[in-house]
Amino acid sequence: MTTRNLFLLPGDGIGPEAMGEVRKIIAYMNEEMSAGFVTDEGLVGGSAYDAHGAAISEADMQKALAADAVLFGAVGGPKWDDVPYEVRPEAGLLRLRKDLELFANLRPAICYPALAAASSLKPELVEGLDILIIRELTGGVYFGEPKTITDLGNGQKRAIDTQVYDTYEIERISAVAFEMARTRQNRVCSMEKRNVMKSGVLWNQVVTATHKDKYSDVKLEHMLADAGGMQLVRAPKQFDVIVTDNLFGDMLSDVAAMLTGSLGMLPSASLGAPDGKTGKRKALYEPVHGSAPDIAGKGIANPIAMIASFAMCLRYSFGMVKEADNLETAIANVLDKGIRTADIMAEGAKKVGTIEMGEAILSEF
Amino acid sequence: MTTRNLFLLPGDGIGPEAMGEVRKIIAYMNEEMSAGFVTDEGLVGGSAYDAHGAAISEADMQKALAADAVLFGAVGGPKWDDVPYEVRPEAGLLRLRKDLELFANLRPAICYPALAAASSLKPELVEGLDILIIRELTGGVYFGEPKTITDLGNGQKRAIDTQVYDTYEIERISAVAFEMARTRQNRVCSMEKRNVMKSGVLWNQVVTATHKDKYSDVKLEHMLADAGGMQLVRAPKQFDVIVTDNLFGDMLSDVAAMLTGSLGMLPSASLGAPDGKTGKRKALYEPVHGSAPDIAGKGIANPIAMIASFAMCLRYSFGMVKEADNLETAIANVLDKGIRTADIMAEGAKKVGTIEMGEAILSEF
Ligand SMILES: CC(C)[C@H](C(=O)O)[C@@H](O)C(=O)O
Ligand SMILES: CC(C)[C@H](C(=O)O)[C@@H](O)C(=O)O
Repeated sequence: MTTRNLFLLPGDGIGPEAMGEVRKIIAYMNEEMSAGFVTDEGLVGGSAYDAHGAAISEADMQKALAADAVLFGAVGGPKWDDVPYEVRPEAGLLRLRKDLELFANLRPAICYPALAAASSLKPELVEGLDILIIRELTGGVYFGEPKTITDLGNGQKRAIDTQVYDTYEIERISAVAFEMARTRQNRVCSMEKRNVMKSGVLWNQVVTATHKDKYSDVKLEHMLADAGGMQLVRAPKQFDVIVTDNLFGDMLSDVAAMLTGSLGMLPSASLGAPDGKTGKRKALYEPVHGSAPDIAGKGIANPIAMIASFAMCLRYSFGMVKEADNLETAIANVLDKGIRTADIMAEGAKKVGTIEMGEAILSEF
Repeated sequence: MTTRNLFLLPGDGIGPEAMGEVRKIIAYMNEEMSAGFVTDEGLVGGSAYDAHGAAISEADMQKALAADAVLFGAVGGPKWDDVPYEVRPEAGLLRLRKDLELFANLRPAICYPALAAASSLKPELVEGLDILIIRELTGGVYFGEPKTITDLGNGQKRAIDTQVYDTYEIERISAVAFEMARTRQNRVCSMEKRNVMKSGVLWNQVVTATHKDKYSDVKLEHMLADAGGMQLVRAPKQFDVIVTDNLFGDMLSDVAAMLTGSLGMLPSASLGAPDGKTGKRKALYEPVHGSAPDIAGKGIANPIAMIASFAMCLRYSFGMVKEADNLETAIANVLDKGIRTADIMAEGAKKVGTIEMGEAILSEF
């Protein structure tokens, strides 16, 4: 029997509660489908800081590196607002992305039909929305050096962050975007600020060259990132796949996620390059929403984004396409039945907690 | 009689057409109100490149520096897509901002009641919207060095952009935000990414210290810039004044502008520091929309954003508050009467061109 190694990092806030529902799905798949998942579990974020004084321990980093896939909950909370910069909760997530070389962040922004009314946009603009944002995740201003605060004397400090992109980094992320587009509507829109940033100039050139070389069958468009933000708000359905850098991707994917009205439901996948020999790629799956400390521990968090992230894991790490499809359909069915957690509650719907939502999805699966 | 020196830079695309309508208002104010405006005019952007091979000539830069205020149209267009980076149309605007030290960019995002239906957001979310985004305009990644593309050999290039912020830059822009807030709802929301960027850490510290020192009567809130983008889309009316850096300000103000449904109508002001002796501040006023090359020269462009920018000029450069109020009311009245350019056309409204719109506003003024 195949063994599939999963490393679970529930993290802080509502992370553990959401992860609990995924654990049940894993157990079910092992029992009923002989899926062969072997799970181990570690700490990340504030909970790792409390235990080890670091946002993730070396031992857990090793386990993450060894696993077939990492499932990540969420990190952060007011409790750790004043811990030193180097060990703040986010540092654990950033280190995982960097050390696992998870350069490709896939963020679907889809609008669940049952939730179109929850969007702040007019329903006709978001109904049926299905965008895939491909965000570069290991480069740019997130990791470039120097990244410093220097005391200049006279009460003045100088802060510096550095955006760095090399050709190969842009090549590989645009290749992912073009490959993904071929499985969808075959359209890619690349966003940068080439009118202001040199990295935008290079980004534009490399995406254009990669397209010409290997993917000329895909329709490619370029847009300035600020105009891209506008167009997302004006007419989001014009997009299929968007490819952009780490910081613009952070902003644009959050705006896109909020547009859908389904923020609490959106998953993401962060993928590395396929291994030369085995073809396997390192991967981490996490919900787009944060740790929501205000509702943590109350049993009311929405586990759907975490479960949908596990569906992405089935699809991209294990090639279990049918199971992924079934799990996503189970989510949609539960929503269609009017079963809702508090964050997506609507008139006439049935309000449930985290556990009931998890069980409802499992029983549809 | 006071002399008021205006330097007009209509620029490219629809810039000159929009500026034409402001010129009529200036002439009217000189004749009917003895306003004493003295105007001179120059070239910027693609039209300057065509004439001088630079995005703005040295002579025009001198005139801009000497004027009481600069009125700026728009720059760029496909004709100049391939000119060298250093002389691209945007370089003229960026040089003006930098050399005039226009560090404070004021971008009101207001929703004209007559246009609420044009927003992609549900009308109840934008009706009455009135946000003021204060964007830092002379620092950050726009101007930091190094800003280079280097050939690494092996077909690899490396692009670098540098975000730099010093304490004094953050201090002076946050002071502007707090001062403005006092004339409004007395609330400031500061946005950065302190969880990822050192400049975000310093930004947050300096805004907090400036608030504590001098503006503790103003309500201050901090938000991560990605969450800020989300909140703008979810519930924009929660904001009064937003203060943020150059690049986040570029993205967030464009998203906010698009939300209003009034994009073609939004003005902006870019202000320098008050002169130690005279108290005068250098200033440039420009519409938020771009050069719209596709409709240039057709007489159909909407001149309202340019005219509203001139109203900001009356208010901030010349203290002509009553005249500014009257001009803004004239715009609102014309819209209420159902007079519309093509970009804001609605059922039952009267469609007019650039000149008719300008004249309609002038006759209400
Ligand atoms: C938590 C934070 C470091 C992170 C980021 O900025 O990448 C988050 O906003 C995200 O988008 O995953
Ligand atoms: C034209 C461009 C350089 C400019 C900017 O990025 O600042 C524009 O987008 C703006 O917001 O004024």
